[in-house]
Amino acid sequence: MDVRRHNANFCAEHFLKLCRDQVAKAIKELDMLRPEDRILVAVSGGKDSLAVWDLLLEIGYQADGLYLGLGIGGYSDASGDMARAFATERGLHLVEVDLPTDHGFDIPSGAKAAKRVPCSACGLSKRHLFDEAAREGGYDVVVTGHNLDDEAAVLFGNVLHWQTDYLGRQLPVLPARNGFPKKVKPLVRLGERETAAYCVLRGIDYQVEECPMADGNKHLGYKDALNAIEVQSPGSKHDFYFGFLARASERFTPEAESEQEALGACSRCGAPTPGEVCAFCRLVERATGSAVPVALGRKGDR
Amino acid sequence: MDVRRHNANFCAEHFLKLCRDQVAKAIKELDMLRPEDRILVAVSGGKDSLAVWDLLLEIGYQADGLYLGLGIGGYSDASGDMARAFATERGLHLVEVDLPTDHGFDIPSGAKAAKRVPCSACGLSKRHLFDEAAREGGYDVVVTGHNLDDEAAVLFGNVLHWQTDYLGRQLPVLPARNGFPKKVKPLVRLGERETAAYCVLRGIDYQVEECPMADGNKHLGYKDALNAIEVQSPGSKHDFYFGFLARASERFTPEAESEQEALGACSRCGAPTPGEVCAFCRLVERATGSAVPVALGRKGDR
Repeated sequence: MDVRRHNANFCAEHFLKLCRDQVAKAIKELDMLRPEDRILVAVSGGKDSLAVWDLLLEIGYQADGLYLGLGIGGYSDASGDMARAFATERGLHLVEVDLPTDHGFDIPSGAKAAKRVPCSACGLSKRHLFDEAAREGGYDVVVTGHNLDDEAAVLFGNVLHWQTDYLGRQLPVLPARNGFPKKVKPLVRLGERETAAYCVLRGIDYQVEECPMADGNKHLGYKDALNAIEVQSPGSKHDFYFGFLARASERFTPEAESEQEALGACSRCGAPTPGEVCAFCRLVERATGSAVPVALGRKGDR
Repeated sequence: MDVRRHNANFCAEHFLKLCRDQVAKAIKELDMLRPEDRILVAVSGGKDSLAVWDLLLEIGYQADGLYLGLGIGGYSDASGDMARAFATERGLHLVEVDLPTDHGFDIPSGAKAAKRVPCSACGLSKRHLFDEAAREGGYDVVVTGHNLDDEAAVLFGNVLHWQTDYLGRQLPVLPARNGFPKKVKPLVRLGERETAAYCVLRGIDYQVEECPMADGNKHLGYKDALNAIEVQSPGSKHDFYFGFLARASERFTPEAESEQEALGACSRCGAPTPGEVCAFCRLVERATGSAVPVALGRKGDR
């Protein structure tokens, strides 16, 4: 396995050690986890979330998983099977929330009814339900499987549009605050090629398909653009992301902080929100055609 | 001529008007030029510099040109011919500086002798000699032909590496300061496809070849990456560059300003420099093997 960013080749054994070391380094340097933390891993059934769960256990942490059923046809069925098989084989606890069963809608039809693009409805639902599960389950921290490619692509999108509020909170560690649990991304030092290889070498069966709703997603275009740069100059993605954290991120915190100050509790579910009713509860109402209309169309939150 | 960024098609007449209007708008909004300014246009013989010279005259400004002979074989010969022909046909004044004749070296061999990459030696020489010509000729402002594609690609490179000092001074207008003339970029609202079309429609014969030294240049890779994004979302380059100016640029000015404060005069040529001898004089000495060695290797300035 060659890792051009590190200008080195690795045998299977040392590649697995590299992955563990990079995750341990990220956790330590960025102060992500304490040994006594109750950890909840957001598990999609894909390579990144299963790899991060496995890596945390390998490094010595205890962690439960949370699988969220999004109702995206066969894709969701297969993803759920992968997540369940991983947990069952290892005797791990997997919490499950099913959007159709528990909230009465699925992403494809819910997004359509709410006139949102699917990736937006999906991201909003995931953030909300992860936060809620962490609060209700008494977890200290939510772990997500975002890798270096993901973070660099999101950063590229935020920079292309100079979304100064998003730039202010694009951090690998978000502290617990205002009712949100702490959130950390231990894979930020690993690329997606590495997390895929990690799963293969560890015999982890994961959902290989891309989500069918993500086709034509701008995020994938940003990844392609950065991949072209990475081929030209290996290490570019790493420098782009970690250079941002070291030298630019703080310049954008004022916007993110002023937004956080203004949060109250959703009158329906109690989640932190800038309005009276949180975006997820409004999505649920539009997606399920609830008979109780609420004030919709709050600026910047649809 | 379709301009997808503006979601419109133009006939020849209205396309030329669009170009004039965009340049006039940039000049006005960014306070680039006053009617009484003595203007010096940095002319390479390529589409951008000839287009901006022509556009300034069309809009009603007076402007002289400066052609810099870089000694890059047949490429420089042809470029010089284009610049001279443009000036002669229109009865314009073209100042000429020839690097081999006036300073004893050309870019290919000089860069090699000084152990610099050619684009670095070239950029440094151009900036120095434009500044010097403006000072000596009593010009108020130097105009360069940087277009939107150039500026977006430079910005992308600066952002990829989070070069906070460069980000602090990547502006379409740099005021006169500390011995540097005012510098402006009136083409920042036009892409390179537009400046090329402008030249064709106006019958301006320009150097079509890319500089042979620039092959493999990272800057061209950044342009390719942004072009891929632009195809996906027309207007991305414009939003990236103007969003930076509107919402991010000022966050990086402290670094650029602290650098400017520390400038003195070069002991050889009098140009502003952070050291005793400016980078151009040191390049000349290394490139020509001058017998008078000076302190080389000042950190960050080679």
